[in-house]
Amino acid sequence: MSLLDTLGLRLPIFQGPMTGSDTPQLAAAVSAAGGLGQLGCGMRSPAAMREAAAAVRAATDRPFSLNLFVQDTPAPDAATVQAAQERLAPLYAAFGQQPATPARWCEDFAAQFDTLVELRPAVASFTFGILTAQQVERLHGAGCFVIGTATTVAEALAWADVGADAVVASGLEAGGHRATFLGDADASMVGTMALVPACVDALRIPVIAAGGIMDGRGIAAARALGAQAVQMGTAFLACPESAIGPAYRAALARAQATDTRTTRAITGRHARGIVNTLMRHTDAQVDQVPAYPVQNALTGALRRVAAEAGNADYLALWAGQGVAAARAVPAGELVALLEREWRDASKNIAASA
Amino acid sequence: MSLLDTLGLRLPIFQGPMTGSDTPQLAAAVSAAGGLGQLGCGMRSPAAMREAAAAVRAATDRPFSLNLFVQDTPAPDAATVQAAQERLAPLYAAFGQQPATPARWCEDFAAQFDTLVELRPAVASFTFGILTAQQVERLHGAGCFVIGTATTVAEALAWADVGADAVVASGLEAGGHRATFLGDADASMVGTMALVPACVDALRIPVIAAGGIMDGRGIAAARALGAQAVQMGTAFLACPESAIGPAYRAALARAQATDTRTTRAITGRHARGIVNTLMRHTDAQVDQVPAYPVQNALTGALRRVAAEAGNADYLALWAGQGVAAARAVPAGELVALLEREWRDASKNIAASA
Repeated sequence: MSLLDTLGLRLPIFQGPMTGSDTPQLAAAVSAAGGLGQLGCGMRSPAAMREAAAAVRAATDRPFSLNLFVQDTPAPDAATVQAAQERLAPLYAAFGQQPATPARWCEDFAAQFDTLVELRPAVASFTFGILTAQQVERLHGAGCFVIGTATTVAEALAWADVGADAVVASGLEAGGHRATFLGDADASMVGTMALVPACVDALRIPVIAAGGIMDGRGIAAARALGAQAVQMGTAFLACPESAIGPAYRAALARAQATDTRTTRAITGRHARGIVNTLMRHTDAQVDQVPAYPVQNALTGALRRVAAEAGNADYLALWAGQGVAAARAVPAGELVALLEREWRDASKNIAASA
Repeated sequence: MSLLDTLGLRLPIFQGPMTGSDTPQLAAAVSAAGGLGQLGCGMRSPAAMREAAAAVRAATDRPFSLNLFVQDTPAPDAATVQAAQERLAPLYAAFGQQPATPARWCEDFAAQFDTLVELRPAVASFTFGILTAQQVERLHGAGCFVIGTATTVAEALAWADVGADAVVASGLEAGGHRATFLGDADASMVGTMALVPACVDALRIPVIAAGGIMDGRGIAAARALGAQAVQMGTAFLACPESAIGPAYRAALARAQATDTRTTRAITGRHARGIVNTLMRHTDAQVDQVPAYPVQNALTGALRRVAAEAGNADYLALWAGQGVAAARAVPAGELVALLEREWRDASKNIAASA
């Protein structure tokens, strides 16, 4: 059975989870329009997960997905934290503030996972790491379809080995955090055009293509490569239903592919975003940056105050290489547009082959 | 008129120029099979260009392309050269040799360009830089269709501005040297999935997609993105008609996407290849490496002696991220296979949309 039939989806369009920028309204609009809405819950508490899932369910009875970061809670030593705070102090000073030590470094994954099982979304998707076969079985027991995110064939195979039902093959064009969990970050920077067919050939489970897909041409292209669906994050970021503020929105509207970079300096994990003061400043000392989620938590208050001040220079402006093609239209309209473009592109290439 | 009609091509398949690894036999086989064979002439002398073009013409009357590096002959100071040679000495020592100063840093571009005009190939293609409008006019006067290579939309627009007839949009998946000539090398690392539709939308001339395209699925995908044709290098590298030796061939057969990196350490220009001793050693001191073509010339003798010795550790093992999908079949058979795959993939995606 095809991925779409299994999930009861009309369209091969997944809205990419965008932790901090997605909303129940966005996910519900995409699901209601025939795609799969996703909520990035990596930084949502169990209570916030319940609230967000309930909001989606209040808006649509269509399937949706909850996405988690597979992560451990770290215990950094005080000297590491203090040194990182000292490096960030000049940035906080721009807002008359000082770096503070956050109450927690990240949400507790075990608690989030328990909440996920309790909420029983149609799809449970994961990034940053990999589940055990036992965890996958537990989700299957709750009726969830399990999707892992991979940036290499080796990672895709690892997800298949633990029993995942499908894999998102995420090319380096993608915005936000890279999913890489095996091997070297640089070596894992594989483009979507090379990654997707390699994963399709290596796996017996469906592949969902992500990275640089912005319109119906991209959907047709991904399907030609053998993907059964696409996952689009940046394409939905400019929708009015996303949570980003006016400063981020304005930066998105101006950006080109060449304005984006990947860096681990902002959060401690490689992520692609639009170059700004925050990225340049932290990247200049990238070798000293503590690992995710410590740096993420240490820069979090700065990014929140910058968002409140409407100052894009100190935000994490996550965006993919397709950013220039992002369209600021309501998500439901965007899905309808993507469907038309996809069907047209598919017809055109058949006619010309 | 479409690109294929203009050039009289049956298939939207260009064999990528691979300076040092392509051969007249390879180019002629691709052209004879209905694609476009290309000879990378960046390091060919005018006499060698004439000889190679004559060999293609003796084998087929179909259109083919000659490709040049747009480059100036440098005049490095003696201290720079000596320091670079000292850094390379341990590598030469593996073969009981010492770095010598080459007779020339590169071929003279003006002489190569004159030879190109004299040879009047159906297609004249370029990389590493950009021509003037006057140079493009001269090629048009000789009846050549002019193609520039771009890694960003800005570079594609620059080629359109000087009168190019088409642009190769080369994503970072591509093997060998990056074509980048404007802006920062890192920022120009755009994936094919994002680059191609952006170039198609920005230009009024045809776009040829390159980077990570290895089979008929990739051709269908590139056409879905709006490209009129594809350029495939790595896909043809394992063909018996290529010039690579057994050691390179064996390394290709083993490599995965994650075994390749880009570095400017081997030649002084960013290029993607399989990681080996030469890459690791030179990359460790990459900040001190002189610019192309000086470093290229200084490592040239080492790579030649390594090729003679059948030692892949000291070769420049250029290859793209699709390397694992390279097929060691004769080029004519490969083109026939690509055609079947492309038509099948195109039909399949139309049927499922």
